[in-house]
Amino acid sequence: MTSLELQGQAAKSAAQTLAVAGTQLKNQALSAIADALLAHTADILAANAADLSAAQANGMTVSMQDRLRLTEERIRGIADGVRQVAALPDPIGAAVSEAVRPNGLRISRRRVPLGVIGIIYEARPNVTADAAALCLKSGNAVILRGGKEAFRSNQALTEIMRNALESAGLPKDAISLVQDTSRESANELMNLTAYLDVLIPRGGRGLIRAVTANAKVPVIRTGEGVCHTYVDESADLDMACSIAYNAKCSRPSVCNAMECLLVHRAVAEQFLPLVKARLDVKSVEIRGDETVRAVLGDAVVPATEEDWDTEYGDYILAVKVVDSLEEAIDFCNLHGSGHSECIVTESYTAAEQFLNAVDAAAVYVNASTRFTDGGEFGLGAEIGISTQKMHARGPMGLEELTSTKFVVRGNGQVR
Amino acid sequence: MTSLELQGQAAKSAAQTLAVAGTQLKNQALSAIADALLAHTADILAANAADLSAAQANGMTVSMQDRLRLTEERIRGIADGVRQVAALPDPIGAAVSEAVRPNGLRISRRRVPLGVIGIIYEARPNVTADAAALCLKSGNAVILRGGKEAFRSNQALTEIMRNALESAGLPKDAISLVQDTSRESANELMNLTAYLDVLIPRGGRGLIRAVTANAKVPVIRTGEGVCHTYVDESADLDMACSIAYNAKCSRPSVCNAMECLLVHRAVAEQFLPLVKARLDVKSVEIRGDETVRAVLGDAVVPATEEDWDTEYGDYILAVKVVDSLEEAIDFCNLHGSGHSECIVTESYTAAEQFLNAVDAAAVYVNASTRFTDGGEFGLGAEIGISTQKMHARGPMGLEELTSTKFVVRGNGQVR
Repeated sequence: MTSLELQGQAAKSAAQTLAVAGTQLKNQALSAIADALLAHTADILAANAADLSAAQANGMTVSMQDRLRLTEERIRGIADGVRQVAALPDPIGAAVSEAVRPNGLRISRRRVPLGVIGIIYEARPNVTADAAALCLKSGNAVILRGGKEAFRSNQALTEIMRNALESAGLPKDAISLVQDTSRESANELMNLTAYLDVLIPRGGRGLIRAVTANAKVPVIRTGEGVCHTYVDESADLDMACSIAYNAKCSRPSVCNAMECLLVHRAVAEQFLPLVKARLDVKSVEIRGDETVRAVLGDAVVPATEEDWDTEYGDYILAVKVVDSLEEAIDFCNLHGSGHSECIVTESYTAAEQFLNAVDAAAVYVNASTRFTDGGEFGLGAEIGISTQKMHARGPMGLEELTSTKFVVRGNGQVR
Repeated sequence: MTSLELQGQAAKSAAQTLAVAGTQLKNQALSAIADALLAHTADILAANAADLSAAQANGMTVSMQDRLRLTEERIRGIADGVRQVAALPDPIGAAVSEAVRPNGLRISRRRVPLGVIGIIYEARPNVTADAAALCLKSGNAVILRGGKEAFRSNQALTEIMRNALESAGLPKDAISLVQDTSRESANELMNLTAYLDVLIPRGGRGLIRAVTANAKVPVIRTGEGVCHTYVDESADLDMACSIAYNAKCSRPSVCNAMECLLVHRAVAEQFLPLVKARLDVKSVEIRGDETVRAVLGDAVVPATEEDWDTEYGDYILAVKVVDSLEEAIDFCNLHGSGHSECIVTESYTAAEQFLNAVDAAAVYVNASTRFTDGGEFGLGAEIGISTQKMHARGPMGLEELTSTKFVVRGNGQVR
């Protein structure tokens, strides 16, 4: 057996214990983890400092260094996050449905953990504790595979959590970190079908695509966001301005930010200058089609075909004029990533048609796509935003980390 | 574009129409399909006769020929099955949950189709109509890829269904058959990620494993059944005999049949001769461990390690004596395929422990595992029995062919 197979075996065994652990015990363990993270702040910061100086020596960009950096305040934030997960309702054990069949069999469908969850992520060490807490609360063992830049930090965080688990009376192998950060270990994890029930990649689109393409373990694809806002001919244009500005500018790097604005031809001449004035506040670069350039002038960069499919993650916006609601719907379905799509309209019929026909995890009328988030949707913490349709779609809370089983009680029935 | 890509594109476009088609229209189409299948019975039988004579020329086994064979009665059965699907409740459109957030956003989670479903199957042409009906009712387009032995039959069935769809006012590309039955076309279908939302293999374990191993499209693994019945020390031994006999002998070829019987040591001497007498009625071959052979004598074949992991699908049964409930639970979790597992016991504590700790799609107390079935569980028709934990687990009815989307209604909210 390889060391990763041994780790998988240990995780699977821990998962069996965790699956039948009560809520109180799991919450005590989460609380012990939060306490231990605070108590060992100095150790975590020391490990993180070593990661950071190696990163600087390797020429890591300043923004990447910021993602990697832990501070006392960030560690307090991580510990608070763990306590918030402890406070969420436990999804495990509840009957989703229960009925008695004509032959007397009592059949209930019970919520159970998935088993062993793999998380592949990049340079943010906070994911280590966030993901571990969500998996623990939902009764799953987790195998974490972070980026090599954060290895020392992840190692420190994981050891603290494992010891806290043990002190709380749960198996420490319920949380473990892959010790080898080579590409080979990532590939091996993606194919660890004997032990892993699901693999969730968290990070940039390169990572997500590599995992989706190579994994034999079932994957939940998360976080690709090419989101549109469509300004209908009947829209309240002030509201449309405010929604478009918020969707683009409140945090352009995240997956629920708008990447492309669609405008109905009937309001293009009036609306485009209005929204440009708002977007100019943040110096947003506009890439427009011919009509947009005709209205806004040569300051607008001509959009290429590629622009319609690009997740900029930046202060850049593709803008297109459409002739009809139907064209807008088709455009969203063709070029969107199935994340979040919005119509701004005062027309009841247009709103309903857009909500029904656009195929995305979240469809909006008259609100910013920036709300697509586990907390904002009332799910508590989230482990990612699924853009696939199988198993989970949209923000994934604790319930999305579960499966079900049928529990059948009889008194001798045969078929 | 390859012809399969064109087919995928047409299916995706049809899926968008189907996703917003009302229940009445879908039911009318199902009814038109059932009528058309009956009206064209002669054409179907002619195509099937050509498949059968080619199969005979190629030396197909008699039991495989039986699976391939259609008769007037079987076609009536297929048409009845389509009408039964029409009579099931439509899962699409219902709100799974709805709430208003503190900021006034009204967020509902709505059941929607998966989109385009691929089905890969073998020599049973009845799957063609069954699967198409379930996909249609749940608003999904389907791409069918049957075995080459049944191609003419599948082609006849599919053309009849496509014409009926069109006559009912729905796009015919909602149902289509892959025209190339080579291994290459199966591989291409498994990797058609641009158009397929999910792939469901139906057939023997060789097919299931090949699809699971090779597909990049998300797969729902179905139908592998290594099921156990554990006779506890407190079992009612008459009941245990009757359940064991039913689980093994009522239909040994299906996935919910028992493959391995576990017996607590305390009752082994009393129970084993009883159950052997019952199993002898069907000349079941018993493969036992040393204790079983010590009790039942040399007529019992010695079990090898391989026997504990084998799905016989036949009148063969592995039998093992265990020292404790815990050993039985661990054995089920180690050697079972996660399908259906049963304890026969009069002990409340043993029953609860088994139900909680055994990790399978269906766990039973005092009833035959043969009940794991969509109809028996009250789900209506089923498209297969999932043995994975993601998305669907156990018998898959119409609801398992759906996803959800978040529908968010605002009045100008920004974040």
